Amino acid sequence: MTNATPGRGGRRLPTAEELRVWRDFVETTEALRSQLASRLQIESSLSQGDYAVLLALSEAPDQRMRSSQLAAHIGWERSRLSHHLGRMERRALIRRQESPTVPRGAEVLLTPSGAEAFRQSTFPHLRAIRELFVDALTPDQLRAAGEIAAALRAHLDAQG
Amino acid sequence: MTNATPGRGGRRLPTAEELRVWRDFVETTEALRSQLASRLQIESSLSQGDYAVLLALSEAPDQRMRSSQLAAHIGWERSRLSHHLGRMERRALIRRQESPTVPRGAEVLLTPSGAEAFRQSTFPHLRAIRELFVDALTPDQLRAAGEIAAALRAHLDAQG
Repeated sequence: MTNATPGRGGRRLPTAEELRVWRDFVETTEALRSQLASRLQIESSLSQGDYAVLLALSEAPDQRMRSSQLAAHIGWERSRLSHHLGRMERRALIRRQESPTVPRGAEVLLTPSGAEAFRQSTFPHLRAIRELFVDALTPDQLRAAGEIAAALRAHLDAQG
Repeated sequence: MTNATPGRGGRRLPTAEELRVWRDFVETTEALRSQLASRLQIESSLSQGDYAVLLALSEAPDQRMRSSQLAAHIGWERSRLSHHLGRMERRALIRRQESPTVPRGAEVLLTPSGAEAFRQSTFPHLRAIRELFVDALTPDQLRAAGEIAAALRAHLDAQG
């Protein structure tokens, strides 16, 4: 922190204040995610990973995705996803089948009980998002949160 | 989403727009964390978990903490931390020792090579935070990010 120098031009490191904002921002977001995950587990017996997979499949055409697409969509390594899908398959939330057209292109399908588990989790999960995120912010702050997310995303994408 | 009703009063679910902001916010923050983790790994051979442990110990009095304190500080389950500390100990980044005063109260100590690894990672990690977070935002957005984090934190703490 002692290396931080002020001004936006040629400086190389964040100022102490910028770093404080970064830390608060990332730590609070993490605490929020963790609190939501814990409510999801208690209220619906689903992990965040289960929910992300069920959400992605629910929104996919024919409620199915190739596992490589699914991994990219939820931002997981394929090996982590593969282990997770094995556990979800044993709970009958999803089913995997080899693609008839693509060799080694396993498809992941939402099962009826997976669809039902997702449907039942939706209301309490959305309520938790409203209580823990939306209700915490003023309308201006909510708008700013959207703008900050868009700015961060555009900047990340531009970095390649 | 079709259940969402407008107005802030008695409604139970977020509106579609609130939910869009939430998703953008949480997904972008996750993408940012993942990008920073990948740079930390490439530039310093440290995982985010390694960095969190080294940072906490660096800032602790005498560069040591009880493992239960450390777990609470970085927000991990004790069993996850214990496994992680085992791996860090094999890499000589930290050392564990039983407390002379507290039975079963293992202390975690920063080793000289752990302190050196942390020191060497600091500059590239802070530079990455500046490039990926600070530089993405206008001064107003950065200030708003700090206010949003504070509002979310206060609301989380109030929920208990």
